[in-house]
Amino acid sequence: MRKHKWMIKNGSFAVLENEKSTLRGYMVVEDHLITYIGEEEPQVDENTEIIDGTHLFFMPGLVNTHGHTAMSLLRGYGDDLALQVWLQEKMWPMEAKFTADDVYWGTSLSVIEMLKGGTTTFLDMYDHMDQVAAVTEQSGMRGVLTRGVIGLCPPDVQNHKLAEAIAFAKDWHGKAGGRITTMISPHAPYTCPPDYIEKFVQAAHDLDLPIHTHMSETAAEVEQNVQDYGLRPVAHLQKLGVFSRPTLVAHAVHLTNEEIDILAAHQVTVSHNPGSNLKLASGVARVPELLKAGVTVSLGTDGPASNNNLDMFEEMRLAALIHKGVTGDPTAIPAAEALRMGTVYGAKSLFLEGLGTLAAGMKADFIALNTDQAHFLPHTDFISHAVYSASAKDVEHVWVDGKQVVKNGVCLTLDEEKIRREAQSAFERLLTL
Amino acid sequence: MRKHKWMIKNGSFAVLENEKSTLRGYMVVEDHLITYIGEEEPQVDENTEIIDGTHLFFMPGLVNTHGHTAMSLLRGYGDDLALQVWLQEKMWPMEAKFTADDVYWGTSLSVIEMLKGGTTTFLDMYDHMDQVAAVTEQSGMRGVLTRGVIGLCPPDVQNHKLAEAIAFAKDWHGKAGGRITTMISPHAPYTCPPDYIEKFVQAAHDLDLPIHTHMSETAAEVEQNVQDYGLRPVAHLQKLGVFSRPTLVAHAVHLTNEEIDILAAHQVTVSHNPGSNLKLASGVARVPELLKAGVTVSLGTDGPASNNNLDMFEEMRLAALIHKGVTGDPTAIPAAEALRMGTVYGAKSLFLEGLGTLAAGMKADFIALNTDQAHFLPHTDFISHAVYSASAKDVEHVWVDGKQVVKNGVCLTLDEEKIRREAQSAFERLLTL
Repeated sequence: MRKHKWMIKNGSFAVLENEKSTLRGYMVVEDHLITYIGEEEPQVDENTEIIDGTHLFFMPGLVNTHGHTAMSLLRGYGDDLALQVWLQEKMWPMEAKFTADDVYWGTSLSVIEMLKGGTTTFLDMYDHMDQVAAVTEQSGMRGVLTRGVIGLCPPDVQNHKLAEAIAFAKDWHGKAGGRITTMISPHAPYTCPPDYIEKFVQAAHDLDLPIHTHMSETAAEVEQNVQDYGLRPVAHLQKLGVFSRPTLVAHAVHLTNEEIDILAAHQVTVSHNPGSNLKLASGVARVPELLKAGVTVSLGTDGPASNNNLDMFEEMRLAALIHKGVTGDPTAIPAAEALRMGTVYGAKSLFLEGLGTLAAGMKADFIALNTDQAHFLPHTDFISHAVYSASAKDVEHVWVDGKQVVKNGVCLTLDEEKIRREAQSAFERLLTL
Repeated sequence: MRKHKWMIKNGSFAVLENEKSTLRGYMVVEDHLITYIGEEEPQVDENTEIIDGTHLFFMPGLVNTHGHTAMSLLRGYGDDLALQVWLQEKMWPMEAKFTADDVYWGTSLSVIEMLKGGTTTFLDMYDHMDQVAAVTEQSGMRGVLTRGVIGLCPPDVQNHKLAEAIAFAKDWHGKAGGRITTMISPHAPYTCPPDYIEKFVQAAHDLDLPIHTHMSETAAEVEQNVQDYGLRPVAHLQKLGVFSRPTLVAHAVHLTNEEIDILAAHQVTVSHNPGSNLKLASGVARVPELLKAGVTVSLGTDGPASNNNLDMFEEMRLAALIHKGVTGDPTAIPAAEALRMGTVYGAKSLFLEGLGTLAAGMKADFIALNTDQAHFLPHTDFISHAVYSASAKDVEHVWVDGKQVVKNGVCLTLDEEKIRREAQSAFERLLTL
């Protein structure tokens, strides 16, 4: 079959291998891959489709490494509450009523927001994951999907949930032309008994999949872990064999130096969720120290009810800003590093190969921002502008796996109006139950 | 002359007097003022222009209480640097080359960004203020303008600058149909000798104007103040008589309990600049404590080179988020309080009367956000969505003093394309000097 080959000319491209480097020139895409990027115009045959990149800044698609996207149905339903009140009085009673349909529409609402905002890959840890996979397949987005399991239940329910998580991971891994991959997810050390976590480790070995879990989000849960098991969460998970698998932990807010060393030694990757951690008052993760220790730190939005949006530009900006303010070091997490956290470190965190930078041989997941706007001027440093000035709504075009999914701000793969209508209805129905 | 009377029907309106309160109904505007807001349809004659507010959320225009807007010309020119390196190697050498024209185009660029992003009032402390006033007048925006004076210079230069500041404040106060007011601004305690600050206090008394100054932005400047004058900045300014005038201080990051009490006792208002304070690693202001003590705390972006945008939605969100994260209290600065900081507390901070809420008798400065977007769904709580989900680019329409200045995202009063072109040229010219 003939390859689909096309070229962008006169574009500005983020080349994140160097500090603050923007390349001005050409990029060629063939089917799913970038095959050329450079200042010099490459030889292409006369049938090659050419896209004019003037006034556009191209960068790798953003990678959101932790979320529960169907929770968009609860956006604004409970804010500014103590964590336990928020969970027990607001989130859990509503989530208990979620049907497969609710998850379908909630996920669709989030996927629309993410794609239009330049996020090309997302991790989702939730329930009714077949629905999430269906939305991912339709949308053209890249998804790392995992059934998050809470194990505070009788053995037969535990076994049923584990079987469900395994079946989902097996069924969907590699589907949608390889855009969907899966992981194995015990929800957290404080919601899963040790022997139950060990069963997930075994399943991850059997299926050769990575593990994803929440870890050390709040000081209280760390204390509880010490009381219950005599160990802080990192040593606890290590003891249970979790780190014998490639592992991505979400949050990792409360860490000792020794715990940072253990994570680094086992190449555990971290999803830093600055917006959610601030909003839920969980604290500020020690990201500069983690990066210094060689840990791959990426960015996640967490669920839309604790954020309350899915704008990865905001997470990059928060990562670049709060660690400066809290450490007193204005050189902490420079713009280029924040952009790497939102892109290539995201791909690494998810153990995805060939993704997250603009370079020949990489998967063609990338986005274009409109630079003809007041807050993008002067045209000094587009990487700085992307991190410190931009928002989701500056995204004009989005390509995933070489296929355009957003054009001039419009999602080409999903019916936005219908999704908005259905999501609103789903929320209204949940309120009446 | 016949009044221009018009009405919005079927709108959702932020009514900030109550916690999280959105009113659904009608608002009537006559010339410069809101004359009705309520759920019931008012009697209007058949010639009254009606605007359909369905799918729009109306809220007071945002009030940006501290900035140096012409510094947009240096956006992205220096980031992630230690404060002194940034100032001495990047900002000051470039700013020293700024001409009146540069200030005109830099300010225009910022005013376009602010107006389109829903900011209806801005404070500007800078040089070449006649240019800033000219842009403000043309743009239809409300401006509180003040020549910021650094006094580290010989007496004759000091006198010249003071005279310039006084002349500007006198000439422009109340101009542009009352949209422009002025203040008197010694730049900061560490850049103005005490006897020089006293001359500004005298001028503020003579002209019956408020004072605006930077104060306690960094720990180092507080320490320096103690070394130089034996007092921390608050006691120092109090001693110099500054607080005998209505005073707005910018930053106020490093405060003792006693200093908070002094500010409260003298009704000194505070412009909190969370984005800038984080980016320059100045620290996190004690905003919850200030608010608890009864101090009016508003929000400012600071200059666009230390932010790097002028999105007041982001400042509201940062204010709502960082104080939760840093204090460990998820109820700190709820959404409605953040929205008040960005609106009515802004007006109070600037000592402007009749501004900052949607109520009969208030000035008609307000904005409309498009609620037909994924990140505004479900339609639970628009005040939460405005603070936790929105960005400048969700603003569809903007009115200042009853006059529409932004319609469907397009600024009606300024030539955006020309401004972008001229601002880029100005920056390129500055680079060659």
